[in-house]
Amino acid sequence: MTTNVGIVGFRGYSGMELERILSAHAGVTPWLLEHRADSVPEPQPLGHIGPERIPCTAEAAQDAGISLVFLATPPEVSMELSAAFLAANIRVVDLSGAFRLGTPENYKHWYKHEHTQPALLASAVYGLPEFYRADVPQARLLSNPGCYPTAANLAIRPLIQAGVIDPACGVICDAKSGVSGAGRKASLKTAFSEVTENFSAYSILDHRHVPEVLMTSNLREEDFSFTAQLIPIHRGILETVYFRAHGVGDSADLLQIYVNAYRNEPFVRLYPVGAIPDLRAVNGTNFCDIGVKMDPKTGRAVVVSCIDNLGKGAAGQAVQNMNLMLGFDETEGLL
Amino acid sequence: MTTNVGIVGFRGYSGMELERILSAHAGVTPWLLEHRADSVPEPQPLGHIGPERIPCTAEAAQDAGISLVFLATPPEVSMELSAAFLAANIRVVDLSGAFRLGTPENYKHWYKHEHTQPALLASAVYGLPEFYRADVPQARLLSNPGCYPTAANLAIRPLIQAGVIDPACGVICDAKSGVSGAGRKASLKTAFSEVTENFSAYSILDHRHVPEVLMTSNLREEDFSFTAQLIPIHRGILETVYFRAHGVGDSADLLQIYVNAYRNEPFVRLYPVGAIPDLRAVNGTNFCDIGVKMDPKTGRAVVVSCIDNLGKGAAGQAVQNMNLMLGFDETEGLL
Amino acid sequence: MTTNVGIVGFRGYSGMELERILSAHAGVTPWLLEHRADSVPEPQPLGHIGPERIPCTAEAAQDAGISLVFLATPPEVSMELSAAFLAANIRVVDLSGAFRLGTPENYKHWYKHEHTQPALLASAVYGLPEFYRADVPQARLLSNPGCYPTAANLAIRPLIQAGVIDPACGVICDAKSGVSGAGRKASLKTAFSEVTENFSAYSILDHRHVPEVLMTSNLREEDFSFTAQLIPIHRGILETVYFRAHGVGDSADLLQIYVNAYRNEPFVRLYPVGAIPDLRAVNGTNFCDIGVKMDPKTGRAVVVSCIDNLGKGAAGQAVQNMNLMLGFDETEGLL
Amino acid sequence: MTTNVGIVGFRGYSGMELERILSAHAGVTPWLLEHRADSVPEPQPLGHIGPERIPCTAEAAQDAGISLVFLATPPEVSMELSAAFLAANIRVVDLSGAFRLGTPENYKHWYKHEHTQPALLASAVYGLPEFYRADVPQARLLSNPGCYPTAANLAIRPLIQAGVIDPACGVICDAKSGVSGAGRKASLKTAFSEVTENFSAYSILDHRHVPEVLMTSNLREEDFSFTAQLIPIHRGILETVYFRAHGVGDSADLLQIYVNAYRNEPFVRLYPVGAIPDLRAVNGTNFCDIGVKMDPKTGRAVVVSCIDNLGKGAAGQAVQNMNLMLGFDETEGLL
Repeated sequence: MTTNVGIVGFRGYSGMELERILSAHAGVTPWLLEHRADSVPEPQPLGHIGPERIPCTAEAAQDAGISLVFLATPPEVSMELSAAFLAANIRVVDLSGAFRLGTPENYKHWYKHEHTQPALLASAVYGLPEFYRADVPQARLLSNPGCYPTAANLAIRPLIQAGVIDPACGVICDAKSGVSGAGRKASLKTAFSEVTENFSAYSILDHRHVPEVLMTSNLREEDFSFTAQLIPIHRGILETVYFRAHGVGDSADLLQIYVNAYRNEPFVRLYPVGAIPDLRAVNGTNFCDIGVKMDPKTGRAVVVSCIDNLGKGAAGQAVQNMNLMLGFDETEGLL
Repeated sequence: MTTNVGIVGFRGYSGMELERILSAHAGVTPWLLEHRADSVPEPQPLGHIGPERIPCTAEAAQDAGISLVFLATPPEVSMELSAAFLAANIRVVDLSGAFRLGTPENYKHWYKHEHTQPALLASAVYGLPEFYRADVPQARLLSNPGCYPTAANLAIRPLIQAGVIDPACGVICDAKSGVSGAGRKASLKTAFSEVTENFSAYSILDHRHVPEVLMTSNLREEDFSFTAQLIPIHRGILETVYFRAHGVGDSADLLQIYVNAYRNEPFVRLYPVGAIPDLRAVNGTNFCDIGVKMDPKTGRAVVVSCIDNLGKGAAGQAVQNMNLMLGFDETEGLL
Repeated sequence: MTTNVGIVGFRGYSGMELERILSAHAGVTPWLLEHRADSVPEPQPLGHIGPERIPCTAEAAQDAGISLVFLATPPEVSMELSAAFLAANIRVVDLSGAFRLGTPENYKHWYKHEHTQPALLASAVYGLPEFYRADVPQARLLSNPGCYPTAANLAIRPLIQAGVIDPACGVICDAKSGVSGAGRKASLKTAFSEVTENFSAYSILDHRHVPEVLMTSNLREEDFSFTAQLIPIHRGILETVYFRAHGVGDSADLLQIYVNAYRNEPFVRLYPVGAIPDLRAVNGTNFCDIGVKMDPKTGRAVVVSCIDNLGKGAAGQAVQNMNLMLGFDETEGLL
Repeated sequence: MTTNVGIVGFRGYSGMELERILSAHAGVTPWLLEHRADSVPEPQPLGHIGPERIPCTAEAAQDAGISLVFLATPPEVSMELSAAFLAANIRVVDLSGAFRLGTPENYKHWYKHEHTQPALLASAVYGLPEFYRADVPQARLLSNPGCYPTAANLAIRPLIQAGVIDPACGVICDAKSGVSGAGRKASLKTAFSEVTENFSAYSILDHRHVPEVLMTSNLREEDFSFTAQLIPIHRGILETVYFRAHGVGDSADLLQIYVNAYRNEPFVRLYPVGAIPDLRAVNGTNFCDIGVKMDPKTGRAVVVSCIDNLGKGAAGQAVQNMNLMLGFDETEGLL
């Protein structure tokens, strides 16, 4: 006896990853909710059998016995569909930025259009289980964190809480992402010939993911510098975090802060002094891998944080949240 | 004293390569003819100086003293612009497929719309200098060959002329191209995340470049099998050509056919028996590199032909043709 | 209660894939057999737990209760270790070419050194289940097929059996592989900067995988042409197979031959007329995906066959064979 | 009448780029000096003509009339050969790190072995023309800067000189390089399958290029944080430089510092506010492209500096230095 769950946006990279993970999950049966005429008809082998497809309506979802839907859709669509599914008593895990920023004003500032469901904003739970686990099980509208903020907050928040960051320098986060972070769509900027053998920075000091980092890490805006950059790869995020350390003697001390913070976390892996994770270690998984390095002479410290942007940065974390919401083991289907 | 030449479509990959080659060419001054509102505003460094820009009209081109224009444009645009420039007594080197196939019927069959300048078709010279050099200098409308046919014909035609191909087997051409061959445009099929770590075949037995190969090589349709495939790289074409050899003893004999055919050709390079060219050898150049292998026991033979699809497959060959048309040394600006 | 199985060569790409698949397999417990001092110490996260490691000896394997070992090792090593494990009554699935070619003479011709275990050669079972399923369960020494031959034979043998190949033309197989096919080792030929933005052919008409294709497909040497080529990707093989068809009307007829051949095969997927598989469809899986195209006018036919060289081309197929040898469902751990 | 110059290490990536640039340079004739038995015999087309090859000895170089040699060799080799060529009155442009760090102690600390030519160290001129142009023409032993330090110093030194960096925060330089920076050699770390679809950091806070940055920029060690990272591309370096600005109002003010510093520099290009360079803009050239962004509210500033690591980071800059040493126009062969 499994729980029926729906996926909207199953043709996008996060949606495809959701289908992949959920199809192997012992406790759920995934359904594909066709939101729009399919703009990308995929060749399928003969006799291919996958999850069943139904229209993307609250009614159809109810008829299928679906009790939770994943929205791997743009924020405008997520706002509209969230209201509809919640009204039909179907819980929502939204992977867009629609419900992450707390207030309609904040949303409008960063996403450049009005929030159409301000009443729902207050009830949304920000689903970063490592910090807000207690709030997740009861969530009806779960807002899945952004990819960059997930890697950043897992690296930065323990440092803030340990009080080891010199505020005169603050925190610099140099973030790099694979191209799937831009979504699955036709765009010259993400065309193969524009991206291969290239590397570029964008949204310097002005990325819409910045407020998510500030909110969760309790950093002040003036203490944070963030740059997003495009790596010519399909998936993976590596963030290099720089700060000046107070009250930390060496790399081992720095590592200990993370050991204390993540001792019981199944999805945060720490590297011994001398080792630094890379994207190979995390791609295809729900792990966030963290490595540290500190120069005792200068107090300069560096933390490297790696995730799969489609895993812990999107679909993996969404399933982690679903597990908590539906009462499964938190790691079910993810290890 | 240089000759003024114009480039239409300078934002595309072939157009950019034309600008690069012509800017270093001692005999010409390139101008950029702005055909449409620029859909891709490129960041430019301060004080950047490049070729002068003028509107894409015959009048503006005449005012600039332009006597020849390159059209790196889609065939529909090339048909329209060719007529206008020729009427103004400006010679045209067209890089599209508009004037390659001889008859309006042929064009319509392969390009799926009407030819709008049938009167010009007859006068177009097909500019593959290695085979049709004598016709190029007088051309007013020069049709620059397709990328796949250039690599294919340079490999196949000498074999046909030498009479060494067993007709029972015919010629199989397995062609692979970098993504720039699809042009510079937003498209999901050529999106980075769709192409990287992938490899795919398309237009199997039905590619619009097939008739160009048949016409030049004097192959019958039933004697030819052609498949196009997409390599996850920016530029370069490698074609692997298979046949059964009659009257050829070994690899050295096979090589000799090409040595005889290309003894005086500056842009065809042959590899000694035991060596096979790859894309590294030709990218960024106007060379076509050819290597051969034959099994004396079975008569099975393989020829590998490599070009830069933006070089000998487009802009390089267009400049080679221009050199012949304007009376420059054929290799000027290309070696 | 699971069966204990060992992996030798777990640091190579096939060995890593074996560890990944077997760790999720419900019926077995994998052990890592350390054959040599580790030349590639990998950074591991703190507290990382994976399969247990023991020395690579028959004694240690017996002590661990291991009843079957996978050898993801070079053929010289596989020959030596096979003898040792078999003598200790431990069954062997060998992923190297050591036991594929039937006779010591054949082996020496293609692998350029003496076979050290000629006595074992005769008893080895060639594990391509789609054709030799009945022989696999009893195998003590299972020889796992090569990657190129797997994709080739699944495409070619049904055609031979259906008698539709015109012998005057024979079969041309243009094969392309990702770089992992060359193994995990330091080599200038597979260095990133040599491979990226390149494409190259090698072992033309002289690849050691050719005899495996001939043996399984019952092709004569003179009827077969094979070229291997390197795609700048990590994993995946696509083979384009060309022939002239006798007694086949169109693409649908051609497809029907495969439908008949693979009706009950869980790991061969066929594409409807008009669709052609690519590497995205198979990477990370044990599937072989096949698509066809035929020109009724000329009788020219093309078959595209795709596998993951580390999946159906190595580790996946090895586990498929193990499932048959140990009495599990053939698809266990692979779907 | 051209000047004869020699290239040692012409099979490496920097050496190949030197050959490419010098072959098109109007004022010199390049010779290839064969230092070791060639470990990488390259396939060459028939009749290929390139620069003449002679043994790598001072005597042979003198016989050829060579007055200047480029050493694109490891530092151990450069130390030995520099002494030999200088003794024969042949000037040296060394692309290795052998003569960059001023003292034998410094060299030993960072390169982990003794400096064998301490007497030559004092006479070496550090050839970053934008800052030390006056010293270059008379140099007999020119030490060509490292790739990372070139991009870093061109970005950082004007800021230091303008006094706009808040010392409490200092300068963070997050550097990313293509794989050719590691040289042309067999190595598992730079194997295609290890690098593709990956991204990794190395030598964090401990890179041997750090002292070059400190020396040229007049930064104190404690004010600088540097991380090197590997991009899965062949060539190009992008460095993202972070600091807190004092006495700078906005991005335009920040840009003005660079406009003032580089007004007359032919190889530094600045981007207007709102535009940021990427690697496409510089690969294949000798340019360093710089773009800036500053948040007036927080004083946080970011500078992006791009070079081709084989161009301005190695061979291009070496030719720029040669031009100054031999009295050519500084841009000869480079624009």
